[in-house]
Amino acid sequence: MSVHDVVVLGGGPGGYLAAERLAAAGRKVLLIEKGRLGGTCLNVGCIPTKTLLACAKHYAAALEGERFGVRAERVTFDWSAMQAWKREVVERQLTGLAATEKRLGVEVLKAEGRLLGPGRVEAAGELRQASAVVVATGSVPALPPISGVRGNPRVVDSTGLLEWPDMPRRLCVIGGGVIGVELAGLFGSLGGQVDVVEMLDEIVPFMDRDQAAVLRRAMKAVRFHLGCKVESVDGATVSFRAKDGTAAKIEADLVLMAVGRQPAVAGWGAEEAGLDLRAGAVVVDERMRTNLPGVWAVGDVTGRSLLAHAAYRMAEVACADVLASAGVGPGSRDRMRYDAIPWVVYGMPEAAGVGATEADARARGLAIKKASLPLRANGRFAAEQGFSAVGAVKLIAEAATDRVIGIHLVGAYASEMIWGAAAVVEQELRVSDLKQIVFPHPTVSEAIREAAWEIA
Amino acid sequence: MSVHDVVVLGGGPGGYLAAERLAAAGRKVLLIEKGRLGGTCLNVGCIPTKTLLACAKHYAAALEGERFGVRAERVTFDWSAMQAWKREVVERQLTGLAATEKRLGVEVLKAEGRLLGPGRVEAAGELRQASAVVVATGSVPALPPISGVRGNPRVVDSTGLLEWPDMPRRLCVIGGGVIGVELAGLFGSLGGQVDVVEMLDEIVPFMDRDQAAVLRRAMKAVRFHLGCKVESVDGATVSFRAKDGTAAKIEADLVLMAVGRQPAVAGWGAEEAGLDLRAGAVVVDERMRTNLPGVWAVGDVTGRSLLAHAAYRMAEVACADVLASAGVGPGSRDRMRYDAIPWVVYGMPEAAGVGATEADARARGLAIKKASLPLRANGRFAAEQGFSAVGAVKLIAEAATDRVIGIHLVGAYASEMIWGAAAVVEQELRVSDLKQIVFPHPTVSEAIREAAWEIA
Repeated sequence: MSVHDVVVLGGGPGGYLAAERLAAAGRKVLLIEKGRLGGTCLNVGCIPTKTLLACAKHYAAALEGERFGVRAERVTFDWSAMQAWKREVVERQLTGLAATEKRLGVEVLKAEGRLLGPGRVEAAGELRQASAVVVATGSVPALPPISGVRGNPRVVDSTGLLEWPDMPRRLCVIGGGVIGVELAGLFGSLGGQVDVVEMLDEIVPFMDRDQAAVLRRAMKAVRFHLGCKVESVDGATVSFRAKDGTAAKIEADLVLMAVGRQPAVAGWGAEEAGLDLRAGAVVVDERMRTNLPGVWAVGDVTGRSLLAHAAYRMAEVACADVLASAGVGPGSRDRMRYDAIPWVVYGMPEAAGVGATEADARARGLAIKKASLPLRANGRFAAEQGFSAVGAVKLIAEAATDRVIGIHLVGAYASEMIWGAAAVVEQELRVSDLKQIVFPHPTVSEAIREAAWEIA
Repeated sequence: MSVHDVVVLGGGPGGYLAAERLAAAGRKVLLIEKGRLGGTCLNVGCIPTKTLLACAKHYAAALEGERFGVRAERVTFDWSAMQAWKREVVERQLTGLAATEKRLGVEVLKAEGRLLGPGRVEAAGELRQASAVVVATGSVPALPPISGVRGNPRVVDSTGLLEWPDMPRRLCVIGGGVIGVELAGLFGSLGGQVDVVEMLDEIVPFMDRDQAAVLRRAMKAVRFHLGCKVESVDGATVSFRAKDGTAAKIEADLVLMAVGRQPAVAGWGAEEAGLDLRAGAVVVDERMRTNLPGVWAVGDVTGRSLLAHAAYRMAEVACADVLASAGVGPGSRDRMRYDAIPWVVYGMPEAAGVGATEADARARGLAIKKASLPLRANGRFAAEQGFSAVGAVKLIAEAATDRVIGIHLVGAYASEMIWGAAAVVEQELRVSDLKQIVFPHPTVSEAIREAAWEIA
């Protein structure tokens, strides 16, 4: 038996950040991870995808230099060299992460962990006791019951695709959510034939519908089949049916299954320990407490906002409460809120947003005012992207209060501009406040300011 | 004689935005510009520089693809093709601007204007009367009395350099301020031999000293000669003397004079009309009013914050007051403040900042707390820039109040991330507020959040 102040179950973003913050506050922390530190995000998600995307952007830049007065001959890419760069980046990040845990005194145990009950976790054949347990087991790819998918060597999930030894010339993506769109953009930009089959009428369901359409139209290298239900997969041939009943087939070399992810609630004792589960996720309150005393849960396993940075924030909220419950510092007034969490689709181009879409506002019965601006009039955008590039800014404010409740971007730099929008929404600023903020010229970000001046 | 509600003198960012906003509010506006609409910024400043920089970035991307698995042979650039793209972008922006003025009903007069006194301007041989006059005559490059500079065909200002028919193989830049550094970065990245001679001990005086040093060290393609005073220029040979008395020479093909800009107060009747001038600039109050009733001034001519976006904001403040003084809408409570105006140095890499530097805080006698973080641990930064790329985030907060008073960035995306920092400083947020804002992962912007958690 070993005794700790805190046991953290799962070493992804939510788990490792919780471990770091609690260790930094002087707690004795055991972090249990069965695989590699960093979780899905670092090992098979955000970081490898964005690294390959950086490669694809270099390829695109080399190909498209002509307009900018740059000539290059015989531009080619080497998939295995890209893979090597990806591995190097992931390993470096992992080394850095392990060093951080060590520096802060987090004890890392490579083992499967099992929650036995409040304060009790079993791992590597030993009982681990702690006054606080933080569950951060993450999520796994969802696998829908489509005929011909299970056991098919030509069907991969995102992890499999990122590791695929050769660049697939023809890729069929089942699912037009964020993972499907990002990987479709990546392979499309590398010159592959890419088809996306999506059951709904538009891609990326959490995006504002107008903005999702802008993104889809901008991704010219990808063919989208909307409102189409996949019926079966045979080898790498995908058969689907459109809403009007028309049947069609796509012949590909590889099929990516990207229909979403689901909380990882199996295999670590959640049910046996008596954790309250709903819709396949661990139920938490606004301080990330579960129904079991002394057990918190953070990140994807809660089924809320399956994003690494949402997990970070949940971890911070949980840590504040863990420390408060241990009598360290003042009682925690930190609460998790989900209305100011930005998201990014690292497509080609990027999209990002924070807060309410028009549909969200309608669902909440809010009267809104709004503004949409295309980016083509923006000086920097045109200078860098050319005149035919697509991008748009959309701003949504509550009519009654003038409060900005949603900011939505498609186009270059969206990922790096959106944190300011998160600040605006989190701080509940009004349109009149936003109009007084000075944006540097010439930037793409100025379009947000212009939208504020146009709002009506 | 013609009669208007408002006469605007000068068609740069401050002037054209004032004209647009006042016309949109129903005022009859005459905009007088002797040259081309758009002023320095659009025609010979921000937009052409950033367009050429976009070209240089494509060139660098094509050259540096190897690490990212991208191969290209015989990568070359064509200076005249770059110039052509630059002209195309500028012309498009100009066309768009002219169309906006027309759509809003602004009357544009191409002529030299002369302020005769309150409500009276002369242009194209005719008296123009208006209840409000907005002066926005901009600035001109400063030309210091260095021997061998005046009349020397090998010495150009930024306008001359941007139009230079051939790419200069060896460029010597006199002055390490923002213009000198941006153009040095541009030509250095194109493979030219570039020297910058700066009288002070560090480049870009308005930057935080630590961050300026980071930027300088990151610009490996440029040789900086700090603490060196230029004594004479002979052809394209620049002679200077270091602080320790050592004399040295740089032989170049072209010399860029970039020692700053000064308000354009000559040639349009400022003195004769009785405008209050101080240190060569038009004196204004916080509503942009001059000493003459019914005469406002905005932009570079005020000598404050010589930036296009500062001119925009001044124009908005002036417009609110112009409208209030005409009895349109409520009295203006809009006031110009200079402590939350972001700036960008479009160097290689970029730098940006907003609010107080450490030196500013010291000068104001403020006790501060701070954090500095290098970007090399940032996942996206490493994935896109490589492990040896340089970048840093610096955060400064007032110790007594926890208020964030300065955010300073060097590295990729700085220009597009900084608006959020402007929002934080403008809204007087505390470090504790900044820590609650969720930043998307993986982004470079996350480093700002990490700095907030590290601040002490």
